[in-house]
Amino acid sequence: MRAALQKASDMAPTAQALEAFDFYAYMRYHLGWVDSAFAPVTGNPGKLLRPTLLLLAYEAAGANGLSSAAPPDTGYLARALPAAAALELTHNFTLIHDDIEDDDVERRHRATLWKQWGIPQAINAGDGMFALARLTLWSVLDRGVEPTIALKLGAALDYTCLAALDYTCLLIAEGQYLDISFEERQAISVATYLDMIRRKTAALMACSAEMGALLGTRDQETIASLRSFGQAIGVAFQVRDDILGIWASTAESGKTVAGDIYRRKKSLPILHALEHASPSDRRVLQQVYRQQTTVTSAQVDDMLDIFARTATRAYCCDFLAKQCRLAYAALASVPRHQHSVAARALDDMETLVRFVEEACKS
Amino acid sequence: MRAALQKASDMAPTAQALEAFDFYAYMRYHLGWVDSAFAPVTGNPGKLLRPTLLLLAYEAAGANGLSSAAPPDTGYLARALPAAAALELTHNFTLIHDDIEDDDVERRHRATLWKQWGIPQAINAGDGMFALARLTLWSVLDRGVEPTIALKLGAALDYTCLAALDYTCLLIAEGQYLDISFEERQAISVATYLDMIRRKTAALMACSAEMGALLGTRDQETIASLRSFGQAIGVAFQVRDDILGIWASTAESGKTVAGDIYRRKKSLPILHALEHASPSDRRVLQQVYRQQTTVTSAQVDDMLDIFARTATRAYCCDFLAKQCRLAYAALASVPRHQHSVAARALDDMETLVRFVEEACKS
Repeated sequence: MRAALQKASDMAPTAQALEAFDFYAYMRYHLGWVDSAFAPVTGNPGKLLRPTLLLLAYEAAGANGLSSAAPPDTGYLARALPAAAALELTHNFTLIHDDIEDDDVERRHRATLWKQWGIPQAINAGDGMFALARLTLWSVLDRGVEPTIALKLGAALDYTCLAALDYTCLLIAEGQYLDISFEERQAISVATYLDMIRRKTAALMACSAEMGALLGTRDQETIASLRSFGQAIGVAFQVRDDILGIWASTAESGKTVAGDIYRRKKSLPILHALEHASPSDRRVLQQVYRQQTTVTSAQVDDMLDIFARTATRAYCCDFLAKQCRLAYAALASVPRHQHSVAARALDDMETLVRFVEEACKS
Repeated sequence: MRAALQKASDMAPTAQALEAFDFYAYMRYHLGWVDSAFAPVTGNPGKLLRPTLLLLAYEAAGANGLSSAAPPDTGYLARALPAAAALELTHNFTLIHDDIEDDDVERRHRATLWKQWGIPQAINAGDGMFALARLTLWSVLDRGVEPTIALKLGAALDYTCLAALDYTCLLIAEGQYLDISFEERQAISVATYLDMIRRKTAALMACSAEMGALLGTRDQETIASLRSFGQAIGVAFQVRDDILGIWASTAESGKTVAGDIYRRKKSLPILHALEHASPSDRRVLQQVYRQQTTVTSAQVDDMLDIFARTATRAYCCDFLAKQCRLAYAALASVPRHQHSVAARALDDMETLVRFVEEACKS
């Protein structure tokens, strides 16, 4: 008791000192900029896929009338940077709340925000990041973006968020249901899962490409094509992750072989196998996903055999290939802008598709 | 086990059925429109204070060039209604998350959303309501509001949210600190509490009045004055609640006498008393707020005596009177619009101040 009070006293709890419980510091921690003592670190900021996609779409759309003199000066990017930052903050707001909802204790090898400072602080920090994302977006106005375009950006982001959250709700409900029903049937069908990917994962990627395009051009065909590209590549990225989560070697992806089986992740391969397995195989799959104990390597081998019998990898790779074809087709339909920056951006987006396709090439 | 499986089977878990786990239904429940089985009810929607204030400010500012022919036709309100709805949704988003953060199990005599459907669903439903609030706001564009004004409304709302969430974070930290330190000192000073009221409670009221004014006029003086009114009346409303939470009779307010003592609410009276009580009186106050057992009526009497010795009611009423003077002064500085609707709105706002003042009149 004395020790506890001494510790409390050492904390010097004045209103000023408590200001150090700054919720911006929690946000910096989540973003990988500081450690849990709020000291700066050079961490892993994540892939920054969404802001990258936004900037590429912006360039592919012509970057708002880029003059031929512009590169190597990249000042033309200034117009799009607030929107790119807003997207990344929005994405991270969902991660902070998802970690609570999914009871995840680690992210990028560190304690999740709620694990470190409790659920109330994590809910609040996430809300703050959501509000901050929008305030950041409005600074496009200081960079010459017209009010009507700024409003379209805001509405695109809001609509995407709502669609994703709507689906998150369904997923939570499915997850809760799954706990009591997995013995009897699988609760999530492949169709439901793909619908989920489209609304939760791909929607924000589609929004990224659309926002970039909105900033880069007034041409509706360009905007629609780039949005379609974002949607297709978004679905493809998720399916790629799902494939590598089962069949990747550590060397090629940094992932554990069959890592998603050990984690019991309800990803596309397991859902496909459940739908197509024989009754006895299905019982094996269900047993692994239901048991309280750690998954053994023998069980992993059994599951990989079942995946082989249900042609699950072929199904996943066919599906991935189809999404990649959609992505290429969307790129092909983007009206060509004469500037080299636009051409290079389209090339980079093609490279992105090839990168995703690699998952099935080995 | 068999019974559990039968029950699970009866739930008919298809993706379609799970769509009934619609997070919009959770929102409707929180808003008091449906019961926990999602059947419609005529409940208590709350005071709707913020949208009311917005509409009054809109009228007081001239309702965007109201013609003398307009009333009794109230069609001129259409321009402001999406913003009013957005405000109410934003306010309710904060309530859904506050209930989790504060571990509150009841709101308006019903289970809170998280208590009814769990924390994950409640976090998600709150996030959804936050996104929905903004989508609602953008429909001002369909009602003739200029894009530049719409953006000002969005930015005002975002800034207010961020300021409130920032402060919520500090409050949570203070609350956590309080649990371990109340024995030794009070963690929240009166100054900190008043700062909290200004940023958390009054900010959204100021935002309400400002948004109404932005929709009603381009005159900056009018907008600033109405914003000041919202700020002052917001602080005053909170202090009124705090006063009635201790000294109201059931008859006059529907509140329990000393209800905030029984609830151990850290409101203005207790914080003032803690700062001004003698050491022995302070120990009595701390004992009541620290104990695990229910507060007794004898303890309430002791506390009311301490409040009397520290002149706490006089302090609170002086403070309330000062806020009301600020509110009257703000109204007096609103440039007069010739239309009767504007005059009536200013009268209604004065009535609001008088209503708040009543708390100290008996």
